[in-house]
Amino acid sequence: MSDTFDNITIVKKANVYFDGKVTSRTIVFADGSKKTLGFMQAGDYEFGTEAPELMEMLGGEMDVKLAGADEWITYTAGQSFNVPGSSKFALKVKAGGADYCCSYLV
Amino acid sequence: MSDTFDNITIVKKANVYFDGKVTSRTIVFADGSKKTLGFMQAGDYEFGTEAPELMEMLGGEMDVKLAGADEWITYTAGQSFNVPGSSKFALKVKAGGADYCCSYLV
Repeated sequence: MSDTFDNITIVKKANVYFDGKVTSRTIVFADGSKKTLGFMQAGDYEFGTEAPELMEMLGGEMDVKLAGADEWITYTAGQSFNVPGSSKFALKVKAGGADYCCSYLV
Repeated sequence: MSDTFDNITIVKKANVYFDGKVTSRTIVFADGSKKTLGFMQAGDYEFGTEAPELMEMLGGEMDVKLAGADEWITYTAGQSFNVPGSSKFALKVKAGGADYCCSYLV
């Protein structure tokens, strides 16, 4: 996997959630598709989705529970998980925070 | 000022400082020049510079004291300040955090 994304547009201002404990930046590819590159401070969060999402862990560790799931699953750098559209998921981010890339799958 | 940077390359992984309380991503322009887009959680920090830097505030508020300065100066969204190369500067980031763009001036 490449260490970079090339020929993209980035929105300067961060997307800010949970009083700044979760922030991301939106990047747009030539084909119009979007991803966000973000960082979460340690903590517990719940997010809703519109489009289906692919969450790729770039660093750190988090426990994830998708809507309807009974168990928490731990993901670390190099791992990824999918979240259905029009759904939600709960996260427990471990000490040191979590670096991630979120792809919106249309 | 445009809301985006276009035709850039971004390094996927975040630059992580102060146990994740300060994170940024590096973007590279076609001419090889670099900037970082970052976010700081509320707190007190000190950074060193190699190249001279232009710090542009995209959101939030911080007090800044450059090396050799006697006073703290407050900067908010839309404002910017320069830091000399091979120097250092102290920051007090206010509640809610600070969103910034740092340009490395060669």
